[in-house]
Amino acid sequence: MEKANGKAKNVRIAYIGGGSRGWARYLMSDLFLDDRMSGTVALYDIDFEAARDNAVIGNKMNELPDKKSDWKFVMTESLQEALTGADFVVISILPATFDEMEVDVHWPEKYGMYQSVGDTVGPGGVIRALRTIPMFKVIAEAIKEYSPNAWVINYTNPMTVCTRTLFAVFPEIKAFGCCHEVFGTQELIANVYNTKTGGHATRREIDINLFGVNHFTWVNEARYKGEDLMPMMWQYAMENPEGDSFKTLNWMNKMFQSNSAIKLDLFKRYGVLAAAGDRHLCEFVPADWYMKDHETAAKWKYALTSVAWRKQDKADRVKETKELVAGTKPVALKASGEEGVNQMAALAGLGSYVTNVNIPNCGQIPNLPLGAVVETNAYFSGDCVRPLYAGAIPDAVNHLVIRHSYNQEEIVKCTLAGDYEGAFKVFINDPQMRLPLDQARKMYDEMLYETRAYLPDYEKYVKSRNK
Amino acid sequence: MEKANGKAKNVRIAYIGGGSRGWARYLMSDLFLDDRMSGTVALYDIDFEAARDNAVIGNKMNELPDKKSDWKFVMTESLQEALTGADFVVISILPATFDEMEVDVHWPEKYGMYQSVGDTVGPGGVIRALRTIPMFKVIAEAIKEYSPNAWVINYTNPMTVCTRTLFAVFPEIKAFGCCHEVFGTQELIANVYNTKTGGHATRREIDINLFGVNHFTWVNEARYKGEDLMPMMWQYAMENPEGDSFKTLNWMNKMFQSNSAIKLDLFKRYGVLAAAGDRHLCEFVPADWYMKDHETAAKWKYALTSVAWRKQDKADRVKETKELVAGTKPVALKASGEEGVNQMAALAGLGSYVTNVNIPNCGQIPNLPLGAVVETNAYFSGDCVRPLYAGAIPDAVNHLVIRHSYNQEEIVKCTLAGDYEGAFKVFINDPQMRLPLDQARKMYDEMLYETRAYLPDYEKYVKSRNK
Amino acid sequence: MEKANGKAKNVRIAYIGGGSRGWARYLMSDLFLDDRMSGTVALYDIDFEAARDNAVIGNKMNELPDKKSDWKFVMTESLQEALTGADFVVISILPATFDEMEVDVHWPEKYGMYQSVGDTVGPGGVIRALRTIPMFKVIAEAIKEYSPNAWVINYTNPMTVCTRTLFAVFPEIKAFGCCHEVFGTQELIANVYNTKTGGHATRREIDINLFGVNHFTWVNEARYKGEDLMPMMWQYAMENPEGDSFKTLNWMNKMFQSNSAIKLDLFKRYGVLAAAGDRHLCEFVPADWYMKDHETAAKWKYALTSVAWRKQDKADRVKETKELVAGTKPVALKASGEEGVNQMAALAGLGSYVTNVNIPNCGQIPNLPLGAVVETNAYFSGDCVRPLYAGAIPDAVNHLVIRHSYNQEEIVKCTLAGDYEGAFKVFINDPQMRLPLDQARKMYDEMLYETRAYLPDYEKYVKSRNK
Amino acid sequence: MEKANGKAKNVRIAYIGGGSRGWARYLMSDLFLDDRMSGTVALYDIDFEAARDNAVIGNKMNELPDKKSDWKFVMTESLQEALTGADFVVISILPATFDEMEVDVHWPEKYGMYQSVGDTVGPGGVIRALRTIPMFKVIAEAIKEYSPNAWVINYTNPMTVCTRTLFAVFPEIKAFGCCHEVFGTQELIANVYNTKTGGHATRREIDINLFGVNHFTWVNEARYKGEDLMPMMWQYAMENPEGDSFKTLNWMNKMFQSNSAIKLDLFKRYGVLAAAGDRHLCEFVPADWYMKDHETAAKWKYALTSVAWRKQDKADRVKETKELVAGTKPVALKASGEEGVNQMAALAGLGSYVTNVNIPNCGQIPNLPLGAVVETNAYFSGDCVRPLYAGAIPDAVNHLVIRHSYNQEEIVKCTLAGDYEGAFKVFINDPQMRLPLDQARKMYDEMLYETRAYLPDYEKYVKSRNK
Repeated sequence: MEKANGKAKNVRIAYIGGGSRGWARYLMSDLFLDDRMSGTVALYDIDFEAARDNAVIGNKMNELPDKKSDWKFVMTESLQEALTGADFVVISILPATFDEMEVDVHWPEKYGMYQSVGDTVGPGGVIRALRTIPMFKVIAEAIKEYSPNAWVINYTNPMTVCTRTLFAVFPEIKAFGCCHEVFGTQELIANVYNTKTGGHATRREIDINLFGVNHFTWVNEARYKGEDLMPMMWQYAMENPEGDSFKTLNWMNKMFQSNSAIKLDLFKRYGVLAAAGDRHLCEFVPADWYMKDHETAAKWKYALTSVAWRKQDKADRVKETKELVAGTKPVALKASGEEGVNQMAALAGLGSYVTNVNIPNCGQIPNLPLGAVVETNAYFSGDCVRPLYAGAIPDAVNHLVIRHSYNQEEIVKCTLAGDYEGAFKVFINDPQMRLPLDQARKMYDEMLYETRAYLPDYEKYVKSRNK
Repeated sequence: MEKANGKAKNVRIAYIGGGSRGWARYLMSDLFLDDRMSGTVALYDIDFEAARDNAVIGNKMNELPDKKSDWKFVMTESLQEALTGADFVVISILPATFDEMEVDVHWPEKYGMYQSVGDTVGPGGVIRALRTIPMFKVIAEAIKEYSPNAWVINYTNPMTVCTRTLFAVFPEIKAFGCCHEVFGTQELIANVYNTKTGGHATRREIDINLFGVNHFTWVNEARYKGEDLMPMMWQYAMENPEGDSFKTLNWMNKMFQSNSAIKLDLFKRYGVLAAAGDRHLCEFVPADWYMKDHETAAKWKYALTSVAWRKQDKADRVKETKELVAGTKPVALKASGEEGVNQMAALAGLGSYVTNVNIPNCGQIPNLPLGAVVETNAYFSGDCVRPLYAGAIPDAVNHLVIRHSYNQEEIVKCTLAGDYEGAFKVFINDPQMRLPLDQARKMYDEMLYETRAYLPDYEKYVKSRNK
Repeated sequence: MEKANGKAKNVRIAYIGGGSRGWARYLMSDLFLDDRMSGTVALYDIDFEAARDNAVIGNKMNELPDKKSDWKFVMTESLQEALTGADFVVISILPATFDEMEVDVHWPEKYGMYQSVGDTVGPGGVIRALRTIPMFKVIAEAIKEYSPNAWVINYTNPMTVCTRTLFAVFPEIKAFGCCHEVFGTQELIANVYNTKTGGHATRREIDINLFGVNHFTWVNEARYKGEDLMPMMWQYAMENPEGDSFKTLNWMNKMFQSNSAIKLDLFKRYGVLAAAGDRHLCEFVPADWYMKDHETAAKWKYALTSVAWRKQDKADRVKETKELVAGTKPVALKASGEEGVNQMAALAGLGSYVTNVNIPNCGQIPNLPLGAVVETNAYFSGDCVRPLYAGAIPDAVNHLVIRHSYNQEEIVKCTLAGDYEGAFKVFINDPQMRLPLDQARKMYDEMLYETRAYLPDYEKYVKSRNK
Repeated sequence: MEKANGKAKNVRIAYIGGGSRGWARYLMSDLFLDDRMSGTVALYDIDFEAARDNAVIGNKMNELPDKKSDWKFVMTESLQEALTGADFVVISILPATFDEMEVDVHWPEKYGMYQSVGDTVGPGGVIRALRTIPMFKVIAEAIKEYSPNAWVINYTNPMTVCTRTLFAVFPEIKAFGCCHEVFGTQELIANVYNTKTGGHATRREIDINLFGVNHFTWVNEARYKGEDLMPMMWQYAMENPEGDSFKTLNWMNKMFQSNSAIKLDLFKRYGVLAAAGDRHLCEFVPADWYMKDHETAAKWKYALTSVAWRKQDKADRVKETKELVAGTKPVALKASGEEGVNQMAALAGLGSYVTNVNIPNCGQIPNLPLGAVVETNAYFSGDCVRPLYAGAIPDAVNHLVIRHSYNQEEIVKCTLAGDYEGAFKVFINDPQMRLPLDQARKMYDEMLYETRAYLPDYEKYVKSRNK
């Protein structure tokens, strides 16, 4: 890229998973709505057609009158082609297909175990990790070869272990993982503040300190222009035993909604505010608490997202894509609320700022393992992401967090070593797991079998089991 | 004490809980059966009569022909009197009465929660800690004042938090906690070795490396004269899916027996050998695993020790004591297998050796919190206990251990501060806890109420709850 | 203070050392030149008259047409009066008089030891610490009592140990130490960049990463809008063996000037750039290197600042002050280039930013002791200063830095405990010290004697020496 | 080896540097004087003849009537042959010849820098490290290939970096470094005790706690049967300002003697007792203190060992060897006082004990870098060496120790990477170094040139310098 007059030209972004009908579109819009950068986005996807469609859609957007910058979109047919010359690399892939995700999420139901998302921790998270980590190994090696100086932004789940894999394979990589879950808590805090004071705080104005692992982060400080908002939040939690009173949406129909009943219950338990949404939080604690079955979920005012729903949702998006490509539906620019473009601009030297991010722990959280990927705030400036010191997680909460951090370190290590026996230890160590050892093993073996097409070391494991 | 010719004379031992009908008698026997030390034992107990009975019994033992050393026993009526001039202090007390212990162990049954011992962790362990820690505060302050240079050996449960309290109140104290649970695992290993090889290894010859917290320690290395025995133990675990084949005792009738079925199940889960007995191990993991109810316990071949049984056992011991005092039953010397006398002799400069011990973590276990009391091997020499480096607990196991270590640190801190609200966080953080927040609170409040006579800050808590 | 419309009104600043003729004036000017805050500055000084003069001068400034905000200055006669109600506390005091400083700096010359500044480390720094730490103890206790929630900015040397004392005495204090030495290095880098590229970078646009202790910080990364400037700086160092070619001032006449010859020599030794000025740097390394005598100093193109010069400088300032108060010389506003006002504004919630700061190490520099005061960048936002992770100091340099960090921790501990025997260990451990033990002791005892009026535990020390 | 009846037969020891006329002979004697083990010693040396001579001598010893065990000695012509089947590997080599050592020790005299030993730190230690580390790399790789399960004992200097190299190249190696310097301090303490009390303590009965790096270890606790001897040592130091009064030997004629004047001076400085002999201690602190020149050494009652003396000593030993081989001088058994045979016996499972040892820091010294080789006590038992927790070195001393620890870590890293530019940083960071940068570089380059025959990366360095 070249810089002049406070702007960056000829920026090159490689988008791995460039056929994405969600995240890729958000990024396109955001790029056009920011005037600081212009350049080219190389879309790479194993589904060439999906990437080509996105290129067509992106180039149509470039014709829109409300765009603030110029971007060209090209479909590429190899990682090498996409990555060569890249200033930034974005990774948002679906590991395997929704059929495998169906195994992740629903197979454990045969054993009485339910999951709300199933892509981060729990049986679904572990099995998904086993097939995603090898993909990230390939990507990390390609980045090392073709664009070692590019900044890499990962959006893929399981966020923590995917990002950790990038660093495990290519330790000098300039990478971080990015997730919007925290923003919802900032919005909740802003809502509470505005309601109680008549103020006009916005999400980005709520300064928080956060620590934890992705989808299980915690907020111990929240301020608006220096005013401590935690007492106000505690009062709010006491006043709303049923959960967030701002949510009037019918969460039953909304697969991704909740009213923060779990967030506030955890707040009452520990005195710190869980930062992710309820659908994620419930997966990190013993399943009995909030996720025993559909009834328990309903009691806590959220829904267990089914993969059938995801399949239907995808079909809708494919249909819409065809219309956008054909021009029967017009393209349009809409701000996503995501931070990706701001982060890239900061890294391009166009303005520094602080936001939350997933990177290896170098001490920003002194009581989680060094090297494990953690989520805290970081300072973004020209070519530099530097974590802010977040402090120690309170012990009462940390036993919940460190357990996952250990498991995540272990699953990356085992998967890279092709050690599915070691991975089974992670499987049984998850707080969702309530089965006796033999039942847990049976379920594990079945889930591996069902997703074996994406498990490079499956045969090796079967052999070792049969010895 | 004075030393000459490799022996120590005029040794003074203060025994707090000196009316004990179990541990105190073991120590008496062991003292007489060792020829290295002689002196006086000052017995202090809030039950003066029990201490006086033990003094009588001890002095009778001093008349036995098979004794190897001279010991005089005196009953003392105050901590000051007992401690002044002491070289060693032994603490083995029953905090409160079996009525309170009945609340600890059996009250949670109203909520469907069963416990096998109930004196270390779980609801019973937390409530017991709340009343025991203040007692240890008094003892630590008395030691600081009357015998600051004495070596202090604690046998009281909850071992970890009691020992931790001594150091919290008097940081320069020379203290350690002592427990025999590990010996059973050394015996099991010796049995396996002898059976498989025709050898004659004894318990003390089995060199182990161990780490963890009391009643939840783990062995990752075991050798006999340099030979690695862990592969043999793994083979043994595989061959004995039902548990330890050496145990022919009818565990159903034995309140303190088990056949290591849980120990071996955990071994199969994690690849390291749990060192305590099954009755303790089952309390440190989610209750679903091994301790859901009496049936589950029976399936795993152990029994949930009832306090009714303890009360009967005590009555038997009281009766026997009267006979011993009256002379209708003769006193006798019998080696207990405990390490207390060997430890004292080493500290007196009469021979150094290595044994397991509970002391604050200064890095012997790098992945448990510094300062928390942990159990590892230590080197005992003249006036010195120095931990051996034990190494990091494998991550897959450590999430189980560190959770308790966090809780134990927290319960000490909260109890010393009179913060029963903070202690409730520990109560709900225990892996045995499966109740929703409101049910857990109800049970906690009831258990506090039932044991309030021994809770110095109970009224303060009630007031804060009623605000 | 009250906030509205992005501004803060009724801000109250307590200035301890408010008679200062240097730092206090800089702050006054900077306050008037910033439009974000207005309020009152309470000037406290043991020299009441000096504080009163500054109040007069400040209030005159308030009449100037180019001021951007309103400030009122009042002289206060006690810490209590100054601190009560304060939002911010600024500390810039001269500990004792220039007579004591003359002992600090020049007494060691009798033993062949020269010093360039003598207020941070070395014999002068240690003796100065012994009399300054007790003053900061008094200040910290007053802040704890009268303004525990105020933000405290320290400018006094020895910066590190003064700031450390604040935290040692009042651990919850919201304090940091502030020093401009680093800015000079940012300016040097900007100069090099602009010269080599024809660019227009300013000091504040040079992003650096820094670590170390005050007056001995190091820069391992420097960027301008994301461009790595370290290779350019290395080339510059190679091309300028005699030091900084930008400095055309006659450093011989300038007591506070240098041409960075030492900075660049250290750069060539270690590959990281020392951030303070040469007059400070030379005091942190063995005196042989750069500060053996006046000739050595001249060779390295800087001067050893004499206290005689400081006395004359003070006399000039006193004279000027009288003129300003009398109105025979007009007051004027002039930006100082310091960061104090920006820091206060950020803490008031009026805009967050990153700057360098001295605060206790919580892990921002993992290879310096936890708790020791270190200098790194930190993120300033509403009511919050949060260090950025700076990383480990390269080992080759850290042996120089950690030595001082150890000494600084020790001198604070010893001085607060009145242990001048322990302080002597620090005295002989300083890298400037080349004397044999007995000579070092003689010099130490003499310097203590000469400054005994300000040493609260002097008599105690003399007694222990005479035993 | 095979074990039976508390003895080990067919033990195989590989001795690398097996032509040694000092250490190898000590070990031979010690082996024959211990009845617990018997077997074969394979002697390997690049000087085949010297190894053959030692084999002859060893086999002659086997005929002596006072031997307690049977040992066979064989000369081997390759590392592979020596190592294959080894239970133990002993390494005691002279890296290069005394000509190179002459450069190490005496070349710096041209620049006014004198050294007492010159084989551990300082200019001599660094240059020696540069040629020794590559030799240890070869040895470590051979051990990894031919005897990965053998226990490896290193006696070669620089002890710390040689031992560190073994672990750097083969992390799973079972190795430790062994040095007798500490024993002298135990003897001194025993002497003081016996003199003051009329007691009969022996060296091995003095329990000490020690920490540091080899040749620069410190004792903070010393006890005899539990009695604290440190106050007695302090009194002794005060009473003997000229040094150890027990030493009546004429140290001027004894190249390896001293009277502990430096040891006691350091004790007075820091309150902890330096454990190595004065000839080593003086090399670890600024050279001005005790080693400025021959006069300074004389004043401190020790001599700077010249390499000319070593050459003469070697000639004497060669002559004696020929006589022993020819039978003109009879062989004899004499206990060396070294611990090697006891250590091997313990590792063979024949009795556990505690002694001091050099191994990587896993936390036994919490304020030295993890992984760096440090010296503390360790517990030797069957197939296991486990460090005792030694504790943090007092800060006042640690700045001296950690500096060397950093340098040692760096020199190993740089040498293995062939980075002599990086090694120069270590060269100038040594406390003996007083030269300006250009003079230091000149001396470094000359010393490299003079020893280039043993420096594998010399040409690479010259090229980079000439660029």
